[in-house]
Amino acid sequence: MSKFWSPFVKNLVPYVPGEQPKLTKLVKLNTNENPYGPSPKALAAMQAELNDNLRLYPDPNSDLLKQAVARYYGVQGNQVFLGNGSDEVLAHIFHGLLQQDKPLLFPDISYSFYPVYCGLYGIDYQAVPLDEQFQIRVADYAQPNGGIIFPNPNAPTGCLLALDAVEQILQASPDSVVVVDEAYIDFGGQTAISLVDRYPNLLVTQTLSKSRSLAGLRVGLAVGHPDLIEALERIKNSFNSYPLDRLAIVGAAAAFEDREYFAKTCQRVIDSREWVVAQLQAKGFEVLPSAANFIFARHPQHDAAGLAAKLREQGVIVRHFKQERIAQFLRISIGTPEQNQALIDGLGQL
Amino acid sequence: MSKFWSPFVKNLVPYVPGEQPKLTKLVKLNTNENPYGPSPKALAAMQAELNDNLRLYPDPNSDLLKQAVARYYGVQGNQVFLGNGSDEVLAHIFHGLLQQDKPLLFPDISYSFYPVYCGLYGIDYQAVPLDEQFQIRVADYAQPNGGIIFPNPNAPTGCLLALDAVEQILQASPDSVVVVDEAYIDFGGQTAISLVDRYPNLLVTQTLSKSRSLAGLRVGLAVGHPDLIEALERIKNSFNSYPLDRLAIVGAAAAFEDREYFAKTCQRVIDSREWVVAQLQAKGFEVLPSAANFIFARHPQHDAAGLAAKLREQGVIVRHFKQERIAQFLRISIGTPEQNQALIDGLGQL
Repeated sequence: MSKFWSPFVKNLVPYVPGEQPKLTKLVKLNTNENPYGPSPKALAAMQAELNDNLRLYPDPNSDLLKQAVARYYGVQGNQVFLGNGSDEVLAHIFHGLLQQDKPLLFPDISYSFYPVYCGLYGIDYQAVPLDEQFQIRVADYAQPNGGIIFPNPNAPTGCLLALDAVEQILQASPDSVVVVDEAYIDFGGQTAISLVDRYPNLLVTQTLSKSRSLAGLRVGLAVGHPDLIEALERIKNSFNSYPLDRLAIVGAAAAFEDREYFAKTCQRVIDSREWVVAQLQAKGFEVLPSAANFIFARHPQHDAAGLAAKLREQGVIVRHFKQERIAQFLRISIGTPEQNQALIDGLGQL
Repeated sequence: MSKFWSPFVKNLVPYVPGEQPKLTKLVKLNTNENPYGPSPKALAAMQAELNDNLRLYPDPNSDLLKQAVARYYGVQGNQVFLGNGSDEVLAHIFHGLLQQDKPLLFPDISYSFYPVYCGLYGIDYQAVPLDEQFQIRVADYAQPNGGIIFPNPNAPTGCLLALDAVEQILQASPDSVVVVDEAYIDFGGQTAISLVDRYPNLLVTQTLSKSRSLAGLRVGLAVGHPDLIEALERIKNSFNSYPLDRLAIVGAAAAFEDREYFAKTCQRVIDSREWVVAQLQAKGFEVLPSAANFIFARHPQHDAAGLAAKLREQGVIVRHFKQERIAQFLRISIGTPEQNQALIDGLGQL
């Protein structure tokens, strides 16, 4: 604390991201990165841009990428917002759309950055408990609110909410913005972007950090009604005119164009997930049904923190959250077949 | 305006950046980019990082770059803050340090993003007029305030405030944060970073977009007392854990390491500036004394908007601000000798 801080800063409780170890020999299954590299076409596009033109500012509107996203999803450019990772996109959404009189609703077990954003922007919120099977109960969201946000599939559970259930939430709160955070949607869900033309209160966010293997590049996006996008553009243009650099714009656009590589690598991750689930179940784990590139599992006879420590000794990092309700779970990202084998071997006999 | 917006959004007046034309044949002297490309070592470092590791998140603390900056300036790593361009760094500064009871002070002619940040974060401010020679009057800042910020050299004037004058401002407001925005300092000024160990209220910001030729990469920084840096880290970690991508971290670090290329290209720009000033003066322009990579000039017999339009017809873009006090000035970035010649030729006989 310092007398020079803006008063609210002393009460901030920042988000803690998963560890990014500097040792490269570790099997890193803790931050849901894609085990496969980005599209070779994305790397080639960045290669072509890696030259003296980096002296020039990027296009502040990132039109090339906006158009690539719009084409991919069959929407208009003015329905797309871009940011420096979906975390920045989410920050602008909290600031520009969710600062309302009534409280924001989100699941009690959810992306742990949501309450942090609320702290940053002074937003009142109410955490809505998941049911006993860690599923979102749609009816619980049909109450007065200043906005609703949830990941789909949910994180860190991996559980998917079907599109008709998403639609019920939208219909029950027509005067609130409903944000569907689809960071993991490509590993087994159906995107709600198909609904944006029918629901002016729907905003869908996505990231290129998971299914498009570009966590290191920092690109995220939102799709929704042009009025919602305009609020975000106003915030962005009052914050930082050029959030995406020249390399990120061309790399991300090329990643969206390369549908074949995308489909192939997503399918590999999905296949590996099913293998990991079967192996874990054979060892006695209870695994929540996952539509993501990670699984959320607990073992009835073994303490989660102990299992995480044991894996770490074997050179395998997974994520363990201390939050009471999920303290006996491990969140395990899906790796390559070799990494997944290292995970199973690392657990040994239980 | 939409019922879904957070209430403050409707009153936002976003910043308008200089045009980024898509035609590449224009002589672009409107956004103060460096006419020379980035250090070849910076390009090589990014080349080495352009691989499958982009699937992994970057180091959220960007330690490699933090250490490079700390070494360069002879400070500690905990005195350095990094962001996605100095615009993001400034946004976090306004939010985390300048939201105070008393008004923020900055010059009336200054970086036009400052009042925009004030609008975004609800900060009260007072614009302090420059004197008739467009210089900062130090005494004007010795008044009750909740913070002080000014570019040095100032933008868009290019005028430099000497380091002892900066120190007087710091001494007169020991209970306020004083931000010296040194985007252009390497083209003729002395950085105030040498003062940070003596003034706990001093924060110095810089960018890699100008003297280090990396506008396309989006990297900025702040140096100051660890207590000030901690406020910014708290904001950053409540906003976006990974503002710098993997390519930006290594490219920016390599740019700081390559002192020789940096010195050579800065000197070329300075030499060209002196040539441009002499040419403009020979045509009857009044040119403010510049320590930046641009000059600010007016012609007693010719309307600035008309001159800008004439140059545009000749394929040369310069920046013209409509703000009343400076409506008869042009801000002209310093280009390569060929670009500078095109500028002078484009003006023709006056």
